[in-house]
Amino acid sequence: MSISPFAPRKLAELPAIEGVRLAACEAGIRYRGRKDLMLALLAPGTAVGGVLTRSRMASAPVDWCRERLARGTARALVVNSGNANAFTGMKGREAVRATAEAAAEAAECTVDDVFLASTGVIGEPLDPSSFTGRIAELARAAEAGEWESAARAIMTTDTYPKLATRTVTIDGQDVTVNGIAKGAGMIAPDMATMLAFIFTDAPLSAAAAQGLCEAGVADSFNAITIDSDTSTSDTVLLFATGAAGARGVSKLAGADEVRGAGLTAAVEEVMRDLAHQVVKDGEGASKFIAITVEGAESAQAARRIGFSIANSPLVKTAFAGEDPNWGRVVMAVGKAGEAADRDRLAIWFGNIQVAADGEIAPGYTEEDGAAYMKGAELELRVDVGVGSASSTVWTCDLTPEYISINADYRS
Amino acid sequence: MSISPFAPRKLAELPAIEGVRLAACEAGIRYRGRKDLMLALLAPGTAVGGVLTRSRMASAPVDWCRERLARGTARALVVNSGNANAFTGMKGREAVRATAEAAAEAAECTVDDVFLASTGVIGEPLDPSSFTGRIAELARAAEAGEWESAARAIMTTDTYPKLATRTVTIDGQDVTVNGIAKGAGMIAPDMATMLAFIFTDAPLSAAAAQGLCEAGVADSFNAITIDSDTSTSDTVLLFATGAAGARGVSKLAGADEVRGAGLTAAVEEVMRDLAHQVVKDGEGASKFIAITVEGAESAQAARRIGFSIANSPLVKTAFAGEDPNWGRVVMAVGKAGEAADRDRLAIWFGNIQVAADGEIAPGYTEEDGAAYMKGAELELRVDVGVGSASSTVWTCDLTPEYISINADYRS
Repeated sequence: MSISPFAPRKLAELPAIEGVRLAACEAGIRYRGRKDLMLALLAPGTAVGGVLTRSRMASAPVDWCRERLARGTARALVVNSGNANAFTGMKGREAVRATAEAAAEAAECTVDDVFLASTGVIGEPLDPSSFTGRIAELARAAEAGEWESAARAIMTTDTYPKLATRTVTIDGQDVTVNGIAKGAGMIAPDMATMLAFIFTDAPLSAAAAQGLCEAGVADSFNAITIDSDTSTSDTVLLFATGAAGARGVSKLAGADEVRGAGLTAAVEEVMRDLAHQVVKDGEGASKFIAITVEGAESAQAARRIGFSIANSPLVKTAFAGEDPNWGRVVMAVGKAGEAADRDRLAIWFGNIQVAADGEIAPGYTEEDGAAYMKGAELELRVDVGVGSASSTVWTCDLTPEYISINADYRS
Repeated sequence: MSISPFAPRKLAELPAIEGVRLAACEAGIRYRGRKDLMLALLAPGTAVGGVLTRSRMASAPVDWCRERLARGTARALVVNSGNANAFTGMKGREAVRATAEAAAEAAECTVDDVFLASTGVIGEPLDPSSFTGRIAELARAAEAGEWESAARAIMTTDTYPKLATRTVTIDGQDVTVNGIAKGAGMIAPDMATMLAFIFTDAPLSAAAAQGLCEAGVADSFNAITIDSDTSTSDTVLLFATGAAGARGVSKLAGADEVRGAGLTAAVEEVMRDLAHQVVKDGEGASKFIAITVEGAESAQAARRIGFSIANSPLVKTAFAGEDPNWGRVVMAVGKAGEAADRDRLAIWFGNIQVAADGEIAPGYTEEDGAAYMKGAELELRVDVGVGSASSTVWTCDLTPEYISINADYRS
């Protein structure tokens, strides 16, 4: 498999976060010659918030996390790649419990403070005995700086690890937000997308952690799509160790506290950074496309129209072919089911106006459009002419490589 | 472009329908060396019913037809391929009127009895002067038997013309239902799909024609998808010349008349036959897949889950790769947003049970699944375990050829 053209030349360097230690290893769950199991140990007092898939076919680890998020405390996170432990019935639930028990013993905590995620093939039983024995070893090896190693261990068809970091000042002290994510395929809107784990040393109540997580997801992971397919395993968890409390940062009780505005922005930026990295590493992607819909009746309507464009196979293949086929954009606006005025519709590729008032824009030339489409990072803007709300979503193109990757993902 | 593997060895032979005469020619609108303009002349007294796209970006011909369907009478149908006359503003409306006027003159009728459809590229102005001069010539040449010629003239990326016919007995007389259609891409559910024209000599009121058309569309054109993209130009029109009235068949006032049950079934069969031909000629299609969802809360829920599976790029690419990847079917059920019980879900490929009670079925082997997937016509059945409603939809796989075709459709 070739590396995404958007792979960063240099990975983000994440600073240590007090209260977080990480380790990863080759457990051989499915892949050979690469890490596929990671453990994060979290200091006592760590608060957790999360957003999980809305799939009706949620995986066993998603069920496990959902049942425990209400408690709001976490001491360990275990993630494996290669097998999603989804649609695995009673065996799946047993695998989850066995993993949590091994992690609880290693982290010296209750099983209810262990969070779990699995990613990979759906429907194949996951044998926990193949890796639970490695968890104690990971706990002994866990160190503060192992972000890249952890990010690599959660990859499936990703071609590069996804890392992001921001630092903000609260109460005169530096507070850090780090995040790792994996993506690649089965990436779709309107729910938390795939696996992403955010860590901060900010002192947060569980309610604040949950609020920050939900607020951040809305315009990051919930604003991207690769293939319109929503995973059974989507999990975004935010862990707040509270270690900055010892440096004089007082506890944030809610996500809306004014004092935490910088943190809210930092969490959203880390999430958006990761979300964009996920899209740029979309299976077979050769173009990264920001789609902004303006002039809509509501932000929700703008989002829906944006996703209708972003998920259209015909729009996506036109981008792959570097064809400024704005007629297909018109089609995708039309099928979205949201209010749009055909006779006021306007479309721009970058700064080039392509359509105005429901027809081709005066002065637009196919040559200008075609030249713009040669770029790797593209912007499409559509004004649907019925209101003043707007929304931006991000996607990639649909290439023959997407099909090659997915026609033999399991073989 | 290679011919679909599902192309019929022998095209259906459609008998003449009294009151319908057809002609087609090479007008050179976009294509070279093939017919791209057709005219159907309809006897006085012909009733018409129709179902049009729900796209908010409907084409000028769709607007034209919508405004005239309420009148319920038709004397001529003009269809061109190569240019959809969609998103063409005032110029598009003018082109439609000029075409209708030329046809009205040739057919010696009011412009309001002329129905129009255009298919092809969106957003490029259609110059009617390039072909309106040919319409009188087509009217002079029109003959009863030119079904294949008409079906060929409306093709875009279709690799074969689509024709179907049925004959039923009403009041002791044979009544015929003929249909032609075009498809290929931008084919999506929940509205009339692409262009299809149904002709019958049954004597029908306009209400009956409309009712028959709507009833037929529901489980035929509205139950198929190629790529989830809905055209700006989707048009299904049913023309009833009433010629069988002269042979003693009395007029059907409504689509629900018991005497017309055979006709209702024949219309639906013709539409389903054409709809299946459209899917089988889906761009790049190598598999024809019937997806039946059972055990759903309602027929609508079953239909939605069916389309969620049928439109999933990951399911479609798995079919292309002959991979019995039922985990992706689980995913697509989960994301549909309709009620489904994960722990009662069951899946069959043909007669092979793959999943039962929320996990892999006892005795299922990957070899059996893989062998089944080698077939060209496949059946997927899913029981979602919450009710007793069911629905079937039809789709094709997603192959690299779909992308090749659409990445340079306009060049």
